[in-house]
Amino acid sequence: MQICQIVGYKNSGKTTVMNNLIRYFSSSDMKVGTLKHHGHGGEPDVVEDTDSTTHIEAGSLVSGVQGENITQLTFNVKVELDKLVQLFSNFPIDLLLVEGYKNASYPKVVLVKNEQDFSLLSDLSNIIAIGTWDENLMKNSKFQTFNLNNLNSNIEQLADYVRRC
Amino acid sequence: MQICQIVGYKNSGKTTVMNNLIRYFSSSDMKVGTLKHHGHGGEPDVVEDTDSTTHIEAGSLVSGVQGENITQLTFNVKVELDKLVQLFSNFPIDLLLVEGYKNASYPKVVLVKNEQDFSLLSDLSNIIAIGTWDENLMKNSKFQTFNLNNLNSNIEQLADYVRRC
Repeated sequence: MQICQIVGYKNSGKTTVMNNLIRYFSSSDMKVGTLKHHGHGGEPDVVEDTDSTTHIEAGSLVSGVQGENITQLTFNVKVELDKLVQLFSNFPIDLLLVEGYKNASYPKVVLVKNEQDFSLLSDLSNIIAIGTWDENLMKNSKFQTFNLNNLNSNIEQLADYVRRC
Repeated sequence: MQICQIVGYKNSGKTTVMNNLIRYFSSSDMKVGTLKHHGHGGEPDVVEDTDSTTHIEAGSLVSGVQGENITQLTFNVKVELDKLVQLFSNFPIDLLLVEGYKNASYPKVVLVKNEQDFSLLSDLSNIIAIGTWDENLMKNSKFQTFNLNNLNSNIEQLADYVRRC
């Protein structure tokens, strides 16, 4: 299973890039898994009053609900990224796209919104490409850069980078 | 990790028994995990327009979202019960309470609502106890029987059976 991260500060376009890559790879021959980290202490939205929520509220630490086609697991325990990745690797997935967890060491595409974001380029490890909404910003960069304004036309090239990462 | 199933037909009281057992064990020293099967082709309720749902709709087969305390995984692939149980066993859980999957072979408490449910007692394997709302129904039974009408007062005894299963 290949792993590639999409990282960047808030409102840098992570969601847009993720969704475009998922659609691109899924419509090709790759089986995609995805993992997103909610920054700033946010929590995933959960449906109130479902069995899963009721079980968690009653004290269950890991609560699963399975239907015909969908299985959902809710963990009310700390799960480290490594353990999550290991868990994904138990399923027939070719590529795991990871949004966030910028301090992790997997190959990553960094989204750069403005000059304040430049610190990411020196602080983060294993950068394989940059995405930006302002190409002038990155004109002197040593990294391969993708213009996020025309993601439709260059998604194939970005996907190629991700696939080789 | 011990495993115990709570099984029975629709409206036999599975949800009530599950929630009482979860609360009982969690308030004692046991770490509990739970798994519920939606019968009759039902699906778990999922929140629309979350990242997880968006990723699944875009083609992701396994989609995870992680916040400070909660991690949620959604699988848009068939996951067999054995694989789910194996997955739970990777977490620090003492007891996995399983609602449904009545044809599985784990030790189980069968909930009996009326005489039509008697077939369960001959068809299912590894029955350790019966729960019923009508004790007269089970007066000739060879199984240890619990009256579900006073679950508050006999939850400890039922839990003891489950713990030893």
